[in-house]
Amino acid sequence: MTIHLACADELLSTTRAVRKRLDLARPVPRQVILDCIRIAQQAPNGSNRQDWRWLVVTDPAKRQALADLYRKTATDYFELARGKAQAKGQEQTARVYDSAQYLVDHLHEVPVHVIPCQRGRPSQDDKGHQAGFFASIYPAVWSFNLALRARGLGTVLTTLHLRREAEAAQLLGIPDDVTQAGLLPVAYTLGEGFKPAARPAPETITFWDTWGE
Amino acid sequence: MTIHLACADELLSTTRAVRKRLDLARPVPRQVILDCIRIAQQAPNGSNRQDWRWLVVTDPAKRQALADLYRKTATDYFELARGKAQAKGQEQTARVYDSAQYLVDHLHEVPVHVIPCQRGRPSQDDKGHQAGFFASIYPAVWSFNLALRARGLGTVLTTLHLRREAEAAQLLGIPDDVTQAGLLPVAYTLGEGFKPAARPAPETITFWDTWGE
Repeated sequence: MTIHLACADELLSTTRAVRKRLDLARPVPRQVILDCIRIAQQAPNGSNRQDWRWLVVTDPAKRQALADLYRKTATDYFELARGKAQAKGQEQTARVYDSAQYLVDHLHEVPVHVIPCQRGRPSQDDKGHQAGFFASIYPAVWSFNLALRARGLGTVLTTLHLRREAEAAQLLGIPDDVTQAGLLPVAYTLGEGFKPAARPAPETITFWDTWGE
Repeated sequence: MTIHLACADELLSTTRAVRKRLDLARPVPRQVILDCIRIAQQAPNGSNRQDWRWLVVTDPAKRQALADLYRKTATDYFELARGKAQAKGQEQTARVYDSAQYLVDHLHEVPVHVIPCQRGRPSQDDKGHQAGFFASIYPAVWSFNLALRARGLGTVLTTLHLRREAEAAQLLGIPDDVTQAGLLPVAYTLGEGFKPAARPAPETITFWDTWGE
């Protein structure tokens, strides 16, 4: 089967980080999550180890606890970062932080929290192993996000709660030798469509044969 | 515009790691690479920093030098790993290593080597920062790969040369405070179509509310 270029580009260009436009009232069927994980399993991963595991949290008390953890790490960080971005006149980035603050305030209400995990720990000595470890989970996480988008759902890949990873692990029974890769609040999206974001021309971030910045 | 589900799933399920089926004779226009980077720029990234930079190597001498570096790190690693996989009866994984060996032998002939980079270094103390750093580049790298696929090209995300990252940096003039995320050998693909890989059912790698392995 041929991949349709326009469809592929549309999918990859309009899958935004969704924080405000999540439908907090509409339930998400388990089967939709499983379908997206099935798609994510086709992503590349080092040595075909497939060490990914997916922890899907729908229990209200656990979502509340995760939201509390998330808020603890996020609040100070956002205040600081938003101030910096505004001072530098980076309006797009300041908007990201406002949207992020909205998510902090409503995370417990998002119907599904997905924590992608990977068995093992990245080496802290061997930088090649470290990069390879994360290169074996984030393509799958992004595929999961893209598969959600194709089904009318949205999410945002957040890593802020990882500063309290051990607390989340205790809450959810995740073993010590398993690495959490983030937290994705998943819901159906609200409103009509998504657009590509403004970006600099690719020529400005591409170098040929020699680094040229 | 609505995303077509079948098209999205096809794209995400059939973008394989391509090592043997790369057309070593057909040139790759620069514009195709730039188009795919433009798509990759729409991927999510932490705090909208967009610290990604793309180094595209077409110079034959530099491709040869990168291939030499790659071979040095790869050969021993593959021999060992292939033996392990065969001993354990993991035929799919053993095939991956055979294919990887083919790439080692032909890497210098692949017309374009793409090294996705990210300004900065992942923290070695703050695990949250470390994950967030890599979560800000590998979605873009995977989008780049998916965009190639939609255009009839293929690649494989490799991280093996990162064990000699400093040597590659010296070869290409990459500054010390820039992190290489991998090496993607890019070419048009040969043959007809790609199929989804065999994977275990998603239910076997998904836990609900509590880790359950």
